[in-house]
Amino acid sequence: MSTKAFAAHSAESPLEPISFDRRELRPDDVAIEIEYCGVCHTDIHFAQNDWGFTRYPVVPGHEIIGRVTAVGDKVTAYREGDRVGVGCMVDSCRSCNACESGLEQYCSEGNTATYNGIDRYDGSITFGGYSERIVVSERFVVNVPDKLDPAAAAPLLCAGITTYSPLRHFGIGAGHKVGVIGMGGLGHMGIKFAKAFGAEVTLFTRSENKVAEARNQGADHVIVSTDREQMQAAADQFDFLLDTIPVQHDLNPYLNCLKYDGTHILVGLVEPIEPTIHAGQLVMKRRRLAGSLIGGMPETQEVLDFCAEHDIRCDVEMLDIRNINEAYERMKRGDVKYRFVIDMASLRDMEA
Amino acid sequence: MSTKAFAAHSAESPLEPISFDRRELRPDDVAIEIEYCGVCHTDIHFAQNDWGFTRYPVVPGHEIIGRVTAVGDKVTAYREGDRVGVGCMVDSCRSCNACESGLEQYCSEGNTATYNGIDRYDGSITFGGYSERIVVSERFVVNVPDKLDPAAAAPLLCAGITTYSPLRHFGIGAGHKVGVIGMGGLGHMGIKFAKAFGAEVTLFTRSENKVAEARNQGADHVIVSTDREQMQAAADQFDFLLDTIPVQHDLNPYLNCLKYDGTHILVGLVEPIEPTIHAGQLVMKRRRLAGSLIGGMPETQEVLDFCAEHDIRCDVEMLDIRNINEAYERMKRGDVKYRFVIDMASLRDMEA
Repeated sequence: MSTKAFAAHSAESPLEPISFDRRELRPDDVAIEIEYCGVCHTDIHFAQNDWGFTRYPVVPGHEIIGRVTAVGDKVTAYREGDRVGVGCMVDSCRSCNACESGLEQYCSEGNTATYNGIDRYDGSITFGGYSERIVVSERFVVNVPDKLDPAAAAPLLCAGITTYSPLRHFGIGAGHKVGVIGMGGLGHMGIKFAKAFGAEVTLFTRSENKVAEARNQGADHVIVSTDREQMQAAADQFDFLLDTIPVQHDLNPYLNCLKYDGTHILVGLVEPIEPTIHAGQLVMKRRRLAGSLIGGMPETQEVLDFCAEHDIRCDVEMLDIRNINEAYERMKRGDVKYRFVIDMASLRDMEA
Repeated sequence: MSTKAFAAHSAESPLEPISFDRRELRPDDVAIEIEYCGVCHTDIHFAQNDWGFTRYPVVPGHEIIGRVTAVGDKVTAYREGDRVGVGCMVDSCRSCNACESGLEQYCSEGNTATYNGIDRYDGSITFGGYSERIVVSERFVVNVPDKLDPAAAAPLLCAGITTYSPLRHFGIGAGHKVGVIGMGGLGHMGIKFAKAFGAEVTLFTRSENKVAEARNQGADHVIVSTDREQMQAAADQFDFLLDTIPVQHDLNPYLNCLKYDGTHILVGLVEPIEPTIHAGQLVMKRRRLAGSLIGGMPETQEVLDFCAEHDIRCDVEMLDIRNINEAYERMKRGDVKYRFVIDMASLRDMEA
């Protein structure tokens, strides 16, 4: 079916309208009319080919909320009219140990990304959520509870699950001191989840002027990471650090803030760690440096249900898709609180 | 009491005989006549001031086995004639969370090292096991089961506990694939413990010629780490890597061998990690890089008891203390299978 979308055609060109065909439904497919799509920093990386493996044209977007418009013959979980979500993955091998454990993000063959991935059946390049509609196997679709504001739910599918999953995996709860490093799209959700799980939460930020806002988000304390005295006072204090910084930064001052047996978890960084870490920071206190990637499909459903139950929402700024390039520039400056969400009505309103 | 010992007086000078006074017994002290003392690579680092904080003269040695010759008024656990051991620590604050958890090695104030430490009461520099006798608070003394060969038990107090503790902490057992990186004093014990816990064990070694010996030690498989094909074939295969290499090395090829949720644990490295690791190696598979430092006192007792029960012993080469400098040279070349142990009779035999 012919589908309007926004795509980048090269690393240098702005996103522009295009049109392409979504596939016919396979037996396990769900067709979704997209209502909202969050704008993730990863979208910018792909549009600009920052990681060197973008396949152009690229239609970004992996925080997708919409309505089911049709289902394949074998679909059992969804029907026309359901409000559903699609996150960062649209397929995986489904048979490896990770997939069978509901951890499709760690599929031994690699999962199929929602955009810039390669479809496992027809070899086509996947196109993401900056589009009118999408067709996805039901296994990679989640239900959006009625209680959720659908626009504010969109970022839960990447920023939300990316912070929820490691906090859950490492068993964060009452009695834990958790530090959240950085307060962007991921960080502000990390604060909310860590608080909801009962932890005492500290935001680490470089910006003196984020202190008040961090408390509004629920942080119990704020440490200005550029202040050496504050960082020294925080030595050996934390059980867990959720590091949402997406660019290279020195981990050593943060590792030093962990108690023995504490864990520093990277969720935003996928580059070489520079400057390097000192092994003594780990060895002398049995500390752990770990990473975590989004979450599996069962846990992606769980985060939506959890947010509905606990009235947790991402703070979003609604965006007309015609302003996507300006939004990217603002995101590069950190000028968004805390996630742009495209209202896809703005795409449908455009002339064909 | 006047005590003969071997000490280094500077980074350049060889170890030489000296004499010093061991303190009078405090109420909780145990006096021990040293029978055997293992030679750890750390001893060389301190003798040579490799880490820049050696206090000379330094009397190394923290793998100490001996007989109790006297006890203080308040000592309850030991009496004259008992065979006992002393490892890497002789004191700690005893009241922090770590100490109260039996993890004195992670004492929030720092533990008092067996040598080159500072006594918490009189401020003197601690002298280690290359000496006739030592005086230690009973809390930092362990019982040596009768079934253990006392000479072969000495290295359990550092090399043994250093490998035993992380394997226990991370719950290694049947069904786990464990890789041991390096087969020196620590590595050969790591193989034995991982096997004893029921894991499938692979040695990673640079040396083609260690393959047969690794199997003798109990390794099920051997991977020559300089062979790219073997390393590629090992991708995503291991639950746990016990990295005993004490010098800088590239961790990335090893991290790549971990399954999702796998853990790479450093027990030998206390320098900056160079070359640096790639964050993607952690994030994309939720892998963990951790460190571990010796073990606490309860676990140090446990490893001795475990070895007695399961007939596990360190492979040792007995050493006359007069040959200690030659032994250091051989250790630097990796020429020892797998631990030198000083027979302290050789010190007592020397003329006063």
